[in-house]
Amino acid sequence: MIELSNRKVGLIGNGSWATAIAKMLNKNLETFNWWVKDEYVKGYLERNKHNPNYLTDVEFKSEKLKISTDINEVVMNSDIIFLVVPSIYVADCLNKLTVPLTDKFVVTSIKGIIPDHFQLVGQYLFDNFDLKEEQLGIVSGPCHAEEVALERLSYLTIAAKEESKAQIVADCLACDFIKTKLSNDIYGTEFGAVLKNIYAIAAGIAHGLGYGDNFQAVLMSNAIREMNHILKTASPLKRKINDSAYLGDLLVTGYSFFSRNRMFGNMIGKGYTVKSAILEMNMVAEGYYATKGVAIMNEQYQIKAPIINAVHKILYEGKNPARTIEKLSKKLD
Amino acid sequence: MIELSNRKVGLIGNGSWATAIAKMLNKNLETFNWWVKDEYVKGYLERNKHNPNYLTDVEFKSEKLKISTDINEVVMNSDIIFLVVPSIYVADCLNKLTVPLTDKFVVTSIKGIIPDHFQLVGQYLFDNFDLKEEQLGIVSGPCHAEEVALERLSYLTIAAKEESKAQIVADCLACDFIKTKLSNDIYGTEFGAVLKNIYAIAAGIAHGLGYGDNFQAVLMSNAIREMNHILKTASPLKRKINDSAYLGDLLVTGYSFFSRNRMFGNMIGKGYTVKSAILEMNMVAEGYYATKGVAIMNEQYQIKAPIINAVHKILYEGKNPARTIEKLSKKLD
Repeated sequence: MIELSNRKVGLIGNGSWATAIAKMLNKNLETFNWWVKDEYVKGYLERNKHNPNYLTDVEFKSEKLKISTDINEVVMNSDIIFLVVPSIYVADCLNKLTVPLTDKFVVTSIKGIIPDHFQLVGQYLFDNFDLKEEQLGIVSGPCHAEEVALERLSYLTIAAKEESKAQIVADCLACDFIKTKLSNDIYGTEFGAVLKNIYAIAAGIAHGLGYGDNFQAVLMSNAIREMNHILKTASPLKRKINDSAYLGDLLVTGYSFFSRNRMFGNMIGKGYTVKSAILEMNMVAEGYYATKGVAIMNEQYQIKAPIINAVHKILYEGKNPARTIEKLSKKLD
Repeated sequence: MIELSNRKVGLIGNGSWATAIAKMLNKNLETFNWWVKDEYVKGYLERNKHNPNYLTDVEFKSEKLKISTDINEVVMNSDIIFLVVPSIYVADCLNKLTVPLTDKFVVTSIKGIIPDHFQLVGQYLFDNFDLKEEQLGIVSGPCHAEEVALERLSYLTIAAKEESKAQIVADCLACDFIKTKLSNDIYGTEFGAVLKNIYAIAAGIAHGLGYGDNFQAVLMSNAIREMNHILKTASPLKRKINDSAYLGDLLVTGYSFFSRNRMFGNMIGKGYTVKSAILEMNMVAEGYYATKGVAIMNEQYQIKAPIINAVHKILYEGKNPARTIEKLSKKLD
């Protein structure tokens, strides 16, 4: 029996989205445990009341924070654990975990795929940490962290098998500038958030190549239909694809000039090689790894996904972006 | 029997979208008849090969144009008539028509409602010019005229009751930078294009009030669901609302900083009165009239449409934009 009503909450991560989640938790909870990567970030947060690297304008009531660099301490003292690190660091981060997750409720908000494993984070937790479906929650946007920092009205979807658990998570996050919606589609909510990053890369490539707004609208309209097709095939749950968690999340990323994924695609479209785009950005867009994992999965299940295929061809098979997008354009309508 | 295969085509209108259509016709047809509003525009086009006021970079092969300021001459000599004037001028423009439309096929590409009549242009033609459903075609985006001028790849949907007729219209427009899709949803295609302008006004108001991209994505995701609900109630034809003609058209307008409707909304959000925004723009956004007509229709049929209601309250009932959008935000999800 997992006891969530006391709301002993832990947060793992100190990037921009984790910092946005921390802001919400800090507003709603008496206290929470926060794992950050090193003593410098811990000390800086405690002394200066803000993250030294991300959303630096967000001021925390630091007397309410229990900051630690020991993941086991944070997990041990928490019933609800928000896991908010980039997908490429998840395995490394959880490797140090010795405390079992048996009686925990784990909420992930990671829009990527575990590299090498080619798995969604939820599935990775099921397989490697004996987590049960009932123990998993997903938090999804549409939500740029930067706008949470600015307290601009945003909407989050919280998915869990049991509505009562989703509601407890929602209560940890909801505030005057955060509205929450509950869902039971844990798989679709998590996977949709991953897929949208690949479509944002496609949007970026097209923009970099000089395609305009007319094409972008057609691309996004095809993208949501392709996402629906993939989600339906992979998990035939009844869902409304035009809900904010799916379509809204796609739009906020696909249309944002600030999305790392779109920016990455833009550089590819403008002629950077994949390697130089990665080096130049000094950070890999989640969608880059996701493209490989999803392309493998699509082939396995014989799912038709021309947009993702095109991105895969460009990023992993060295195909020419201009010719690949031109070919793709003939399949769109 | 309407004879379209000879493709005797006429175009009525000389605004930016009409000029974009003219560019496509000029590429595909040996010749076509073009009604423009006065001798100055006619003379300028004939001498200088481009429109003096709109898309001035587009150069026409003017030897292929038969330009006239006499609407009866143009209609008489054409079997297919593209009607592309702003909705507020349609009635005035067609008032001069004495030639019957009995054996014509009329293609409209007007994203507005006839003022005072509160009717879609198609319906207005049925009621006032004895046009039959089989004689009506609709051309819809997503398509900014400016990008057609730049020959950026764009997609048009052509709706008609009979596919063969839609195909003939498509053949008049399709070229290396214009792809076409056929549809039999004349009502939904025409009405969707009208509704999206109201949603673009809503997007503009929210932007002007300081709402961010997170909210905008939620607004658009709610808007396409609201549009679907309205179209379903008004015309329960089977349609895929995420097709480019509906969702794509909404996105290209709702996310465009160049959309007149979005700009009009933005001014309202920033504190202009409706009257001063209209004066300042020196041109009325189609969505302004559409809002009134659609609100009346929604009330008549008891269709729930909170976004359109909010815009109507702000534009026509003098309600405070900030408070109205805040109330609306509670109904979105």
